Amino acid sequence: MAGIALGLHGGCGTLERSLQSEADWAESREHIALALRAGWKILSSGGTALDAVQATVVMMEDSPHFNAGHGAALTARAEHELDAAIMDGNNLAAGAVCMVRRVRNPIEAARAVLDGATAVLLAGDAADEFAASVGVSMVDPSYFTTQRRIDALLLLQQLAQTGAFVPATEAEKHGTVGAVARDANGHLAAATSTGGFNNKPPGRIGDSPIIGAGTYAHDGICAVSCTGQGEIFIRRVAAYDLAARMQYGGQSLQDAANTLVFDTLASHKIGAGMVTLGATGNPFAPYNTLGMYRGWITTEGDMTVATHAELHNIGKA
Amino acid sequence: MAGIALGLHGGCGTLERSLQSEADWAESREHIALALRAGWKILSSGGTALDAVQATVVMMEDSPHFNAGHGAALTARAEHELDAAIMDGNNLAAGAVCMVRRVRNPIEAARAVLDGATAVLLAGDAADEFAASVGVSMVDPSYFTTQRRIDALLLLQQLAQTGAFVPATEAEKHGTVGAVARDANGHLAAATSTGGFNNKPPGRIGDSPIIGAGTYAHDGICAVSCTGQGEIFIRRVAAYDLAARMQYGGQSLQDAANTLVFDTLASHKIGAGMVTLGATGNPFAPYNTLGMYRGWITTEGDMTVATHAELHNIGKA
Repeated sequence: MAGIALGLHGGCGTLERSLQSEADWAESREHIALALRAGWKILSSGGTALDAVQATVVMMEDSPHFNAGHGAALTARAEHELDAAIMDGNNLAAGAVCMVRRVRNPIEAARAVLDGATAVLLAGDAADEFAASVGVSMVDPSYFTTQRRIDALLLLQQLAQTGAFVPATEAEKHGTVGAVARDANGHLAAATSTGGFNNKPPGRIGDSPIIGAGTYAHDGICAVSCTGQGEIFIRRVAAYDLAARMQYGGQSLQDAANTLVFDTLASHKIGAGMVTLGATGNPFAPYNTLGMYRGWITTEGDMTVATHAELHNIGKA
Repeated sequence: MAGIALGLHGGCGTLERSLQSEADWAESREHIALALRAGWKILSSGGTALDAVQATVVMMEDSPHFNAGHGAALTARAEHELDAAIMDGNNLAAGAVCMVRRVRNPIEAARAVLDGATAVLLAGDAADEFAASVGVSMVDPSYFTTQRRIDALLLLQQLAQTGAFVPATEAEKHGTVGAVARDANGHLAAATSTGGFNNKPPGRIGDSPIIGAGTYAHDGICAVSCTGQGEIFIRRVAAYDLAARMQYGGQSLQDAANTLVFDTLASHKIGAGMVTLGATGNPFAPYNTLGMYRGWITTEGDMTVATHAELHNIGKA
């Protein structure tokens, strides 16, 4: 398949390498590779970019290593409120859900909204109910909870009670997952899914489910999924700003993405990253933190997985 | 005060003039004038654009003629779910709420989020609770309900049961209110508030509370508040697209707004309108429907109120 390409991120919140066990690190990289293969299987058999980004994000949601689906962050009330969005660059169709609590894979609920809802963005119980009504798989909220998130929440809350200043680690702040793809017909798509951040205020909606903030795709221009402090991405309309810099400003994908990550967003003193893909060429995934879980398969079929600066060439997909 | 200016819209969903009584029409125009005067009083005494758009929108929320606050549309469950956003072009600070049910003036809740929340966008009960915690005035949800909205909802639902195709009138679809202002220091601000549309699905979030979709302000570029079918404004990232066309594409405010309303948005076969304001000059409020409740006060202090094509010059503010 000529021109197909796939990229993903698992959040720009990697731990320092010295704080992560070899086994944990290896498994997170393996899960990235599995997610890439899930999307690539669709693209390489002539499937759509939309299906590919969904399949990729489902695998990331299912992994406990990333802050989406199983393994998602907890709110200050120790509950899960999950957000996701998906966009089809072919027709600018989009679907998103926020504050869902029972959909096993929030990206599947977002896709159901894209396919069948009158709304583009559905929230809360109504979003769960809509997803259930169209056959999306539902779970008890406890499915999402991992011991790591419970421990992290308790630590944050205990330290807060002592009055100590407790900066959340980047790993707790930015665990969003996302994917971008281009299919054999040249169509682009983007998808993003997140649990937000640990100890987040209930009712807080970040950039992930906001079209133009955390997620955007437009054929002929770019597809992008963002990770980082969502409030800044909302105020900067970051995902659409990438497209606008290219469409109206004539910037290259790389120049536009670098300007956003290292200048516009970094000026707010936040960790930021994104996975991007243009109308041609390969995924580009800049970040300004210690590391970003990420991976891509190029138009040549070469797969790369990375967590920090070092790139791990996995060979042919 | 040199350079100050103020504009508002009350939705691009006016009835045909022949379907609206003289008394109803006159009072809606009077309420627009009152809202303009509320914002102008702040601007002309040296206050901020942010305070001015808030005060203007509060007056529109308090009027039963517009679909925001008192007089808001009802969901398919005959409840109110209110959305609002406000943005300060000076520092790109923003606050928004969605699905609030008990805040008397949703724009005041959005302002409270801007001023004091860690989030930019707060949803549902948590947003009501946050607003109450910082002293925003709360009401019983019945405060928002007017007989007109009850009648319209019942009619829509009765006709739907008969299987008849029932297009909602533009008046029921697009009643959002919004304002833009420039203050004596050249700062811009925008605010939007809405009840959504009558018989909307519960949990549906439109463009109004989405920064970059229905609301945006950036000093030196533009301020904008949108009205129309929110799903398309979200997919088109309409409010930020206006700014991007100007900032990256070098388009004038008028050219960019006209392109959006009469080309980009109209291509989706929707009613659309917006009130816009640039770094200099006067408000510009294009719409592609039969009419749009709107009004503005120019840098010369001249006030205009309009509902359909005809402009009503009110004289000096």
